[in-house]
Amino acid sequence: KSTKNITVLPGDGIGPEIVSEAQKVLAAVAGKYDVEFNYTEGLIGAVAIDATGSALPEDTIAACQSADAVILGAVGDPRFDNDPKAKVRPEQGLLAIRKALGLFCNIRPIRTFDALLDQAPIKADRLQGVDFVIYRELTGGIYFGEKGTIGEDKAFDNCVYERSEIERIAHLAFEAATKRCNKLTLVDKANVLETSRLWRKVVQELSAQYPSVEVDYLFVDNAAMQVILNPAQFDVVLTENMFGDIISDEASIISGSLGMLPSASVGTGSSLFEPIHGSYPQAAGKNIANPMATILSVAMMLDHLDLPEAAKDVRKAVDDALNSGFATIDVNKDEPQSTSAVGDRIADLI
Amino acid sequence: KSTKNITVLPGDGIGPEIVSEAQKVLAAVAGKYDVEFNYTEGLIGAVAIDATGSALPEDTIAACQSADAVILGAVGDPRFDNDPKAKVRPEQGLLAIRKALGLFCNIRPIRTFDALLDQAPIKADRLQGVDFVIYRELTGGIYFGEKGTIGEDKAFDNCVYERSEIERIAHLAFEAATKRCNKLTLVDKANVLETSRLWRKVVQELSAQYPSVEVDYLFVDNAAMQVILNPAQFDVVLTENMFGDIISDEASIISGSLGMLPSASVGTGSSLFEPIHGSYPQAAGKNIANPMATILSVAMMLDHLDLPEAAKDVRKAVDDALNSGFATIDVNKDEPQSTSAVGDRIADLI
Ligand SMILES: CC(C)[C@H](C(=O)O)[C@@H](O)C(=O)O
Ligand SMILES: CC(C)[C@H](C(=O)O)[C@@H](O)C(=O)O
Repeated sequence: KSTKNITVLPGDGIGPEIVSEAQKVLAAVAGKYDVEFNYTEGLIGAVAIDATGSALPEDTIAACQSADAVILGAVGDPRFDNDPKAKVRPEQGLLAIRKALGLFCNIRPIRTFDALLDQAPIKADRLQGVDFVIYRELTGGIYFGEKGTIGEDKAFDNCVYERSEIERIAHLAFEAATKRCNKLTLVDKANVLETSRLWRKVVQELSAQYPSVEVDYLFVDNAAMQVILNPAQFDVVLTENMFGDIISDEASIISGSLGMLPSASVGTGSSLFEPIHGSYPQAAGKNIANPMATILSVAMMLDHLDLPEAAKDVRKAVDDALNSGFATIDVNKDEPQSTSAVGDRIADLI
Repeated sequence: KSTKNITVLPGDGIGPEIVSEAQKVLAAVAGKYDVEFNYTEGLIGAVAIDATGSALPEDTIAACQSADAVILGAVGDPRFDNDPKAKVRPEQGLLAIRKALGLFCNIRPIRTFDALLDQAPIKADRLQGVDFVIYRELTGGIYFGEKGTIGEDKAFDNCVYERSEIERIAHLAFEAATKRCNKLTLVDKANVLETSRLWRKVVQELSAQYPSVEVDYLFVDNAAMQVILNPAQFDVVLTENMFGDIISDEASIISGSLGMLPSASVGTGSSLFEPIHGSYPQAAGKNIANPMATILSVAMMLDHLDLPEAAKDVRKAVDDALNSGFATIDVNKDEPQSTSAVGDRIADLI
C-alpha cells in the first residue's frame, strides 16, 4: 500500500467546507485503490492572520514542502479588501506559498459541461468543441516585482521577466500542446511592453524545438475578446502572471459556473491543487458552496500522483452527479443539493 | 457660420476608408447646420513610418495641437507585430499622440443594438438594459513607465501612478456618474498592486465630494467575469490604462460587433475621436469595413464641439440605417452593403 502525504490548507470562507468534501472523495479513492492518504493541516490567509499575525506561517510552508501534494481551499476575506492601509492581507499568503514552493506554472483547463450549457451566458453554438488549457506564469511579473509607495501620493509596481522564467513554463506549455492538438497561443502585449517582447522572442525561439506545434500570438486585449467570441480556437494558451489572472477568470465563464473549475500549480517543489474560485464569504458555513471545482482539482492531483485510473473515476463521478442534476444551487437552481450531499454522492459513485 | 478646424489622421489599414465616410457624414451635418469643417490631414502609424521614419511626425502633432478636434482612423500593421526587434512601431504613434495631446481619459460607451442582438455571442437576456461607459486612464501606468531590457535576457516595464493622474480622471468619471445613474465602479487589483491601492485610496477620498454616487470596487479578474455575466450592473467604470485596454475590448463583445463602438479621448489639449477597433488589415482597400464606429465617434465629437443636435442626428441616422438592415458584412451577412454605401446612406439620412 502506497502512502501519499497531503498537506491540506482549507483557508478562508467556504474553503474548509469544500476541502472536506474533497477529502471524502479521496477516502473513497483510498478504499478502491491501493493507496492511503495522510493529511497534515496548515493555516493560510485570513484565518492564519487571525491566529498568528502572518498570512502564511512558517509551519505551513514546512508542511507543504515535505508533502507529496498540497490541497488549497480558498483565501480572502472582505474585512481586508477595502482597507488600503491594511499591512497584512490574506492574499499575501497565497502569493507567498506560490513563491515558497516555486509554483511557477498555474494550469487551468477550460471546458464546457452539458448540464450547464443552458445557464452559461454565452450562446451554445459558440461553445461547441471548447476544450483548452491555460498556462499562467505564477511567480513572476508585476505580482512579484519591486513595488512600493513614494511619499503619500505616488505608487509603483515593477513588472520584470527573465528569459529563464519564460523558458521553463514555455517548455511545459509546448509539451502540453504536443499531447493535445499541437497549438499554442501566446497572449501578450508586445506592441507596448518590453516584457511582452521578451516573451514573444523566447517563445519564437523555443518553437523551433517543437516543430509540430503551431504557434499563434495574440495581444491581450484581442485575447479578451477571442476567449468569448471564438473559444474553440484555443488549445494551449500561455501567458504571463497578470494577463493570466484576468484571462483565466474570464474564460471560466465558458463553463457556466465558477464552481466547476479546477487548477493545478506546479514548479520546482510540491504541487498545489485548488479550485479557481475564491473564498465566497457570503456562502461560508451555509453548506451551499459547490465542491466540484475542488474535487476536480483533486482529480488533477491524482493524475499528478500517478493514479490516472483514480483520477478518471473522480471525473466520471462528477460528470454523473452533474448529469443527474445532483448539484449545488449554482448549477441546479430548482432542486439544489447541499455541499456535503454532493460530496457524499460523488464519493458513493466511486 | 462657425468654423471648426478638424485634424484628420486616417492611419493604417481600413483607417482611410472609414475616416472618409465620417467626413461624408460631417458634410451632411455642415449642410444642415450653420457650421463648416476645415480639414487638415496628418500622418500616423505605419504609413507615417513608411513616409518619414517616425510613427508620429512633428507636423502631425502640430496639426493636432491647433485643431478643435482630431479624428483618428486606426493604427497598426502586421509587418511590425511579430518582429521583436523592430525599433519603430506604428503603435508608438498612437501612444505618442496620447501623450502629446495630454489625452489622459479615454471614454468608451458600451451599449447594445437591437439589430445585433442575434449575433452577439452573449445570450440576449443578459444584455437587457446594458448601458455603461468606461473611463480608461490613457497616459499613465505601465504603458508610459520606464521600460527596457537588461542585457539580452531580462526585460522590465514599470507601472507608476501619481495621485494627480488618478484625481483628474476620477473627477471626470464621478461627474459622468452624476449625469447618469450615480454609480461608479473602480476596477483594480488592490489585493496585489501598490498602484491599485493608491487608486482605491484616491477614489475613496474623492467619493466624499460626490455623495450621490455609489462607489463599488471590483478586482480586475472579477471584473473580467462580471462584464459578461452581468453587464447591466455597470454605469460608469473607472480604471487604469492596462486594465482599461483589456476590459474595454472585452466589453465591446456586448455590442455584437467591434465595428460599432466609438470612443473619445479627452485631456489637457485637443480631444481625439476614434473607433475602438484596429486597422483590420485583411479588409483594407476592399470597401467592406464598417464605418459606423467612426461615424459614432464623430457624433461624440459633435457633442464635444457643442453641436448636440447634430450629434443626435448622426446617432439617429446610424440607428435607422442599422434597423433597416443597411450595414456592412459584420452586421448584415445576408445582404451586406459596402463601406461607402453605408456612409452615403447615413449622410442621406441626416
Ligand atoms: C487572490 C489573488 C491574489 C489571486 C491572484 O491574483 O493570483 C487570485 O485572483 C488567483 O487567480 O489565484
Ligand atoms: C494599439 C494599442 C497600443 C492600443 C492600446 O493598447 O492602448 C489599443 O489597443 C487601444 O486600446 O487603443
